[in-house]
Amino acid sequence: MTHSLRLGVAGLGTVGASVVRMIARRADALFAATGREIRITAVSSRDRNRDRGLDLSGIQWFDDPVALARSGAVDCVVELIGGSEGPAKATVEAALASGKHVVTANKALLAHHGAALAKAAEAAGVALAFEASVAGGIPVVKALREGLPGNAVSRVYGILNGTCNYILSRMEREGLTFEACLKDAQALGYAEADPTFDVEGFDTAHKLAILTSLAFGTVVDAEGVSVEGISRVQPLDLRMADELGYRIKLLGVAQATAAGIEQRVHPTMVPKSSAIAQVMGVTNAVTVDADAVGELTLIGPGAGGEATASAVVADIADVAANMAAGRVRPTFGRPSAALRPAERVEMQRHEGGYYIRLTVHDRPGVAAGVATRMAEREISIESILQRRSENAAVNDPRGRSGQPVPLVLITYAATEGNIRAALDAIAADGLLAESPQLIRIERE
Amino acid sequence: MTHSLRLGVAGLGTVGASVVRMIARRADALFAATGREIRITAVSSRDRNRDRGLDLSGIQWFDDPVALARSGAVDCVVELIGGSEGPAKATVEAALASGKHVVTANKALLAHHGAALAKAAEAAGVALAFEASVAGGIPVVKALREGLPGNAVSRVYGILNGTCNYILSRMEREGLTFEACLKDAQALGYAEADPTFDVEGFDTAHKLAILTSLAFGTVVDAEGVSVEGISRVQPLDLRMADELGYRIKLLGVAQATAAGIEQRVHPTMVPKSSAIAQVMGVTNAVTVDADAVGELTLIGPGAGGEATASAVVADIADVAANMAAGRVRPTFGRPSAALRPAERVEMQRHEGGYYIRLTVHDRPGVAAGVATRMAEREISIESILQRRSENAAVNDPRGRSGQPVPLVLITYAATEGNIRAALDAIAADGLLAESPQLIRIERE
Repeated sequence: MTHSLRLGVAGLGTVGASVVRMIARRADALFAATGREIRITAVSSRDRNRDRGLDLSGIQWFDDPVALARSGAVDCVVELIGGSEGPAKATVEAALASGKHVVTANKALLAHHGAALAKAAEAAGVALAFEASVAGGIPVVKALREGLPGNAVSRVYGILNGTCNYILSRMEREGLTFEACLKDAQALGYAEADPTFDVEGFDTAHKLAILTSLAFGTVVDAEGVSVEGISRVQPLDLRMADELGYRIKLLGVAQATAAGIEQRVHPTMVPKSSAIAQVMGVTNAVTVDADAVGELTLIGPGAGGEATASAVVADIADVAANMAAGRVRPTFGRPSAALRPAERVEMQRHEGGYYIRLTVHDRPGVAAGVATRMAEREISIESILQRRSENAAVNDPRGRSGQPVPLVLITYAATEGNIRAALDAIAADGLLAESPQLIRIERE
Repeated sequence: MTHSLRLGVAGLGTVGASVVRMIARRADALFAATGREIRITAVSSRDRNRDRGLDLSGIQWFDDPVALARSGAVDCVVELIGGSEGPAKATVEAALASGKHVVTANKALLAHHGAALAKAAEAAGVALAFEASVAGGIPVVKALREGLPGNAVSRVYGILNGTCNYILSRMEREGLTFEACLKDAQALGYAEADPTFDVEGFDTAHKLAILTSLAFGTVVDAEGVSVEGISRVQPLDLRMADELGYRIKLLGVAQATAAGIEQRVHPTMVPKSSAIAQVMGVTNAVTVDADAVGELTLIGPGAGGEATASAVVADIADVAANMAAGRVRPTFGRPSAALRPAERVEMQRHEGGYYIRLTVHDRPGVAAGVATRMAEREISIESILQRRSENAAVNDPRGRSGQPVPLVLITYAATEGNIRAALDAIAADGLLAESPQLIRIERE
């Protein structure tokens, strides 16, 4: 008879409670899939007396998750506490140090300490699994780590934050402001009371850093991600994007360039016809560009207790199926020693198309002045959209009001350094009534 | 030093050649990912003298793939011969019987003999891996077998044949007939000289049978799939679909119902807003509906030497990573003995929405007659589209020409038995100028 896999679950919030119920509900299927009984033998959470509607009879309770991690009654610790430091980190470190497999949904922990933890897991010969840390229920970690070993990846990008995609989807569909949509998202529980972490792109950056390591074999480097959130996107930008054949999504993008692996999070124009442009609401999506498969896209739920628990339980099943082996697949798809340091590529060196929305004074020669400054930096303009102010004809027989009006440019591929320099020159010329809006374009 | 994995590759066509090159090109990455050197030690193909542009020096040549499968110089046989019988089957059986792991891209073999081969693999304690057999480079077998063990799947459906999707995409975009698009597909190498296997849905049926077994834990049952191809789809149907908010795709659908698992392949109306509707050209896509993750969609290349080789090499890497374990995950996600027999559900019992295009005589009372027969079978009509013949007003002051005109109905959910019975009654009433067109609707 095969030894069962004894789980210690640290953290009994929404995801933890879903995991406990799923392990019970799917007991037979999990046994059939893995050849091993999976039992929860220990749990830990902050408040022992809260009613979670869970049957925890016969399960050992720990007030201290680190004690749970060290318990002899546990083979695998499921860390669902969250946060890159404090009890989550201490729990995972204690588990690995005492030779226990770890399954975690903790993106912040992996993004900041992934390399060190992978090394510890390797030294102990145990698994450190984190499918749930990126894109919730989408099995993208497995796809990158095990599904594409014959491929060299050139780019991975995705919609990794449901809150931002929900807000942008509503702004687009209903013409509302960022602030109004954020308020609704908060009312619906899609956004936190302090939404900074989500809407300013930091959550996406953590997930991207993990994907980058898996896709390119680099040491996970969250600090190397350039981050820009969605709070400056205006309804006018979404309307202009629509007219020009694009949608605006907050993307995390990791891309191989001559200078190294770019890691960037920013509002992005994507062609309406792309798979990723169809992804609306809280749904997540990840696209991988690789030499053999070409383009591969995975779409699914990015959050929620059940969807996240689905990813956690898949990792647990992998541990159960493979623990007899006495060896496990390396955390980031290759041994720690084989991970390359991530070269940081400055955004100034990024090359791509740009959407630039200027607010110019509606005067003769403005468009020409803008075009000249662009040409000086060898920036080619693909298209230009100029909107007269609505009462222009009333103010001026030649149709010019002198009032601020939008002037939108789409550029061919240019470096960000040149774009910024041209915009500085245009501002110095006194042509701008407001600071410019700049949104990067990501092509398929 | 870990023992290397010695591969015998049987079949050196497009995919086989790609596999040989990929194993060489990715040698370092594969070693890093699996902890084991992967070497091709033997190959077999029909014509030894053909120049494939491959360096086969130091690799043993076998004229007989069965001899390769039995060779002591091979740990894992990569079967790329194709076909459900003959040398492919003999090779795989010989490999399993002599205790060798098998990686195959052979959907026909798996669809027809999957259960018996899985049993043989189990008895030998070796892997039988077949990622490349379904949806080419998309890691959907892995996703279903390992990515969703916490889920009960309720439906899996997909675009599994690039030829059909290419033809339907062109028919839709350019208003061309099936015959014209098929000819172009043949000229471009997307369709065979005898296209029956693809366009009549049999290829999709094989792949669906494999997905069904993985998703529902049933014995793979290709004969249980109801199959209808795309050759009867007309440009008018695609125009009507467009007007009604749908696209037409050849889908393979496996769905849990009270009567058992429906397995069906047919042209299908899908809402334009669905992820699957966006998939154009030779691309494949699979959507899984499951209780915990909700909806998960994977989109990628369904064919091509490199994309298929990518899936083959992923399976090879799994074998290399797990072979030390002395145990492998079961072929269809659970042990053979735990696979349930697949109950066959007749299409008559299928319940869903229908698109029905009738060609009726343009006479008074026809629409009423049709509606009455539908009502008698308790079929509710969601929408109705009637096109007058273009010269109607010329022929008849009341706008009716008596000539055949299309009458399109979209129904709410009804059983196929009732739909067929109503159509028989309508035909018996003499209302139809041609036999009716019926396309099932699949909702998200």
